[in-house]
Parts: sequence; C-alpha cells; structure tokens
Amino acid sequence: MPTMNPYAITVVGGAGIVGREFLKILDERETPVGRLRLLATKRSAGSTVEFRGSTITIEETSPESFAGDDDVVFLSASGEASRQYAPLARDRGALVIDDSSAFRMDPEVPLVIPEVNADALSWHNGIVSQPNCTTTPMVMALYPIHRENPLRRIVVSTYQAVAGAGGAGVEGLRTETTAALAGRHEPSGTQKREIAFNAVPQVDDFREDASTKEETKMANETRKILDAPDLAVSATCVRIPTFFGHAMAIWAEFERPVDPAEAREAIATMPGVRVVDEPDGERYPTPVDAAGNDDVLVGRIRADSSCPGAIALWAVTDSIRKGAATNVVQIIEEADQRGLVGPGSGR
Amino acid sequence: MPTMNPYAITVVGGAGIVGREFLKILDERETPVGRLRLLATKRSAGSTVEFRGSTITIEETSPESFAGDDDVVFLSASGEASRQYAPLARDRGALVIDDSSAFRMDPEVPLVIPEVNADALSWHNGIVSQPNCTTTPMVMALYPIHRENPLRRIVVSTYQAVAGAGGAGVEGLRTETTAALAGRHEPSGTQKREIAFNAVPQVDDFREDASTKEETKMANETRKILDAPDLAVSATCVRIPTFFGHAMAIWAEFERPVDPAEAREAIATMPGVRVVDEPDGERYPTPVDAAGNDDVLVGRIRADSSCPGAIALWAVTDSIRKGAATNVVQIIEEADQRGLVGPGSGR
Repeated sequence: MPTMNPYAITVVGGAGIVGREFLKILDERETPVGRLRLLATKRSAGSTVEFRGSTITIEETSPESFAGDDDVVFLSASGEASRQYAPLARDRGALVIDDSSAFRMDPEVPLVIPEVNADALSWHNGIVSQPNCTTTPMVMALYPIHRENPLRRIVVSTYQAVAGAGGAGVEGLRTETTAALAGRHEPSGTQKREIAFNAVPQVDDFREDASTKEETKMANETRKILDAPDLAVSATCVRIPTFFGHAMAIWAEFERPVDPAEAREAIATMPGVRVVDEPDGERYPTPVDAAGNDDVLVGRIRADSSCPGAIALWAVTDSIRKGAATNVVQIIEEADQRGLVGPGSGR
Repeated sequence: MPTMNPYAITVVGGAGIVGREFLKILDERETPVGRLRLLATKRSAGSTVEFRGSTITIEETSPESFAGDDDVVFLSASGEASRQYAPLARDRGALVIDDSSAFRMDPEVPLVIPEVNADALSWHNGIVSQPNCTTTPMVMALYPIHRENPLRRIVVSTYQAVAGAGGAGVEGLRTETTAALAGRHEPSGTQKREIAFNAVPQVDDFREDASTKEETKMANETRKILDAPDLAVSATCVRIPTFFGHAMAIWAEFERPVDPAEAREAIATMPGVRVVDEPDGERYPTPVDAAGNDDVLVGRIRADSSCPGAIALWAVTDSIRKGAATNVVQIIEEADQRGLVGPGSGR
C-alpha cells in the first residue's frame, strides 16, 4: 500500500471480535495510526488491549466520547449504537465507517466494497456503510462478470459461520459441540437454535414477508452496490457449525450467455478474489481454507446446461476479515488516497 | 398398515448403517418377515445381529448367495455389488430393491418414491431402484405443487449429513470434531476434505462438465420420477458437519404463478411430509429435528417477489430413514399390496 496519513482512529466495539481483528489487520498491513482509542459497553470498559507496544484501556462509550478529535470512527457495535453515535461522531468531524445495517440503505450513505465501488466514497456525507458479511463475497465474485454482462437474477444459499454472531457465537459453538459429543443437547442461546451438528435456516429476525432480515439485506445491498435496482435476488441464509468462513452456493443469470471458462478468467482478474477451481484435482475452497485470509475464494464455477445465461459457483470468505474488518481498513485507505478523511478533507 | 405377507428377505449390506436401520424400521412398522438373511463383505461376515429374539449371523455375499429362496433382496452396498448381484437375484425370482445408483437411470427399472410414483412399480422387471437420499426429500416437497402446476426450473443447494457416507462418515465426524476442538486438523478420510467445522462442496466424484455425480443424480432422478424430461435442475451438493438430517434450500419455478399460502396447504396434504413453517414463532425444521423421523419436514415456504411463478422453501429429512431404509420398506409394502412380489406374483 502507498503510505497513508496517521489518523486518529476510534473503534466503538473495540472489545468485540471484529474490533480485535481490525487491530490485527492494521498491524498486518502496517497501517500508520496516529492515535487509537477503543470504546465499548460498560461491561468491557477497563479491560486492556496491547497495540504496537502500548497498552490501551477500553473506555465506556457515551455521547461525550466524541469530542471532535477523531479522524475516523469505526462503529462495530449494535445497530442501536450506530444510530446513536454515528451522527454525533460525524457532526464532530470524523469520517464514520459503520458495520451495522443502520445506514446501509440510506440514500445519503455510500455502501462500499473498495474493489467494486470505491467511487461511491466521493459522495459520502460523513458516514460510509459497509455491507453485510454475506453480501461482500457474493458481490466480489459476480462483479467481474456483471460489469461486462449485467446480472439479471441471483439465487443464493448461504453456509454462514458462527463468528458472524460475534465472539459469543464462536464460544457457543465450542460449548454446544463438546456437550453434543457427550450426547447432550445444550443450546447456548447464541443462535436461533442449537447449532452444534445442525443447520439453522434463520439468521437475524423474520420480516412480514416470511424472509429474514439477513436475506433481505443480501438482496437490497447487492442492488445498491451494483446500482442495479431491478436485479432479482432470492436468498436463503443458513447458519451452519463452522467458525469463521462464510460460504455460499450462487446461481446467477446474466443478460447474455456466459461461458464458464470466460467467467473463471474474468473472476481471476478481480482484486481481492482468488479462484480455486480445479475439478480434476478436486480443488475448491472450503470455510477452513478461508479462515484467516483476506481473499474471497471462488470455485465450482460451471455452466447450467439448461440456461445459457446462467452459471453456478461457490464462494467462501472469512466473515470477520473481508466480511468485516479488512473491508473497513480498505475503506480508510481508499478514503485517504482520495483526500476524503482527516485534516484538509473538509471533515 | 394393512397386513403384509411374511416374505423371505435378504439384505446385502446387512452390516451397514442403512441395513441396520432397515431392520429397525421393520420392527417399528411391525412388518411381518418370513425369513431374514443378512449378507455383507468378508470383513463383516460372522458377526451377529439380534432381530425379534433370534440371532442372525451375517454371511459373506457371493454369487452362490442367491439360490432362489428369496422373495425380496434389498441391495444396500456398492454400485459394483449391485451390478454384480442384482441380475443374479432377479433371475432367481426375487424382487430386487436397489439403493445404489447402478440402475436408477435404466429405462427398464422404475425409480420409486411410493408417495409420488407408486404406479411405476407396475412395470418393474425384477429390479426397482430407489432414489438418492437428496432426491427424495426434494421431490416429496415439490410434487404436491407440481402435479397441479408443472415445475419449470429448480435451483437447489444441499446441506448433507455425514451419514450419507455410511457409518464411517458418522464416526469420522466424531473423531475429527474431537481433534479440532483440541486444535488439531486431522481429516479422517471419510469425506473429500476435513468435515469438522467445515463445508465441502463435493459429494461423490466430479464429472466432465465440472458438476459432481451427486448433483447430476439430483437432476436426472428428479426428471425421471416426475416424468418431466425437460425440467431444468441446477444443484450444488455440499456436505456439512451434521450427522443424519439432510437439508436443502430449494428455489422452484412453476409454469403458473404460485401463492405461497396455497403452496403451503398443498404441501401439507402430502403423505410423508410435515410442514413446520411458522415465521412468527420462528418455527422451521433443522437437521437435528429430522433425525430419527420418517417425515420430510418442510418450512421457510415463501414467495420470490421478483418472480410470481417461483417460491423458495427448505426441506429436511433423515438421510438414512426416508432418504434410504424407510423408502425401501414402503416399496416392499406397496409391491405387496399390488401383488408384485412373492409366490403368485410371477416372480
């Protein structure tokens, strides 16, 4: 990466699984940081985190936390916290990057995957949203075809890891699995149902139309990011007993016929995507492969013999990295390159 | 059930997970059995099984095993074993029910789910095939709509349990999970990849067209059972770390518009299917619910707002019961009712 300005960064949700991964990624990318502050709920306040040789004490978030000395505020807490604190931080001059669903569909707020629609950052109004952790890998996998041959319909089924529900989800799967191996069904309450050795077709709450909010997010966010308001998307979102890697089986129909070999080539040129697709060698990505990596891994790219305009494929990514924290660091880097953050940006 | 004749039954693969479940189901249904013989490979020969107060010693299968004294031979072994022994047993007068893929697409062999196409038994030629354990629940869930409003296209993603790979698959998941909880990746070799806390988008071998045999089975078998040669089916078959319940997310397009409430009612009338679908109460079936039951459980029935002819739904069934052994017992019962088996049937 080109050198970035050392910004004053505050993380709300600094004790959470995404907040911790965010610090790790700053380190991995050697991102310059001017000053780092970690905020969390009262429960986590007072605990400490090591970062580049300093000990940072986590403080409790309050409306007074945003005093105008932040360049960037990364909100990785609840939708409620985002609705309360994002406008405050924005009004005090910070570029707010929000990982909740609170502002994603707000027409004033860009929803950004840097590799896909970095230009949308130019019209930010102080708040930038980042997509749901299932939307990002799907859009990354399909965009390289879509930009040449527009998408018409997506049917997608997800295989989502428990980390999407936070650190408690990870611990819940561990404890439930240990119990289940001993013959005991002991739901931890971290998912909608017992998740050990199970598959739960409900992520987030139900809506009136019998879809879940997660399914609706995948549809609406994809349309917004790709600026494709008429794109048909039918999603089924399912939690399975994996830890970090979100996977999805995607069937996508495009306006014109798609050759799977050409699709594979197009996808392989996409930054942030790695094609792992060798049927002869039985090579394809799995959630275990994706964990700890930044790439979206794509495989099982193949034709639908009954529909020349359609292909099927399989995508996997780490829900906490490219699905969340990595994308935020990339948004900061991109905003920096474009002079959209920090002193002199007008923010 | 009406009283059935007590047939002389032989199970090839009597030591396997499906063979054992078959005996359990005979007991549960109080199916009369004249004489029961269990055959297996040399490795299992000599071990014993209790059945209705008798001890049955498992014998090694050989061409000489079929001496003309069987009414029914249930083959639950490899495709190779089926190809070798099915014609022998058939030629010595038995009704052969085959659980392998060896004869499923043979135009002389009916492929039967009793609730859907029992009439196909009438043209059996001594061998009846039963569908792959993923085909059965999908067809059972869609048939009640299809018979009124023909299917045009299916896009399906499976969440398949390890029991589909036999008893070794179940043990493999246990041992891999125990190792993984201790931080060790120790693939058991029972699936194409490590399956503990993973999702593996390959069931069975790859074909030339980059689909897997399992995916092709779902497409071809569905077309044959429903007598719908032009039906478009795109399947992605994925193994996940569940033990017995096969689940699947189905998107299905029909010739005419489908109202999800009417679809739900139609599915609820289907014998062998139980609708569990109350979004308000967060009720839907999961693999843990399906294990040990004979029903195909269907939920998450909803419209696709972008396509009036399409609905999405979620189906789960026990891969070893309705996916395998239960369906076989039902085929025997149905053949009995129709006078297609045993003395006097011409077999």
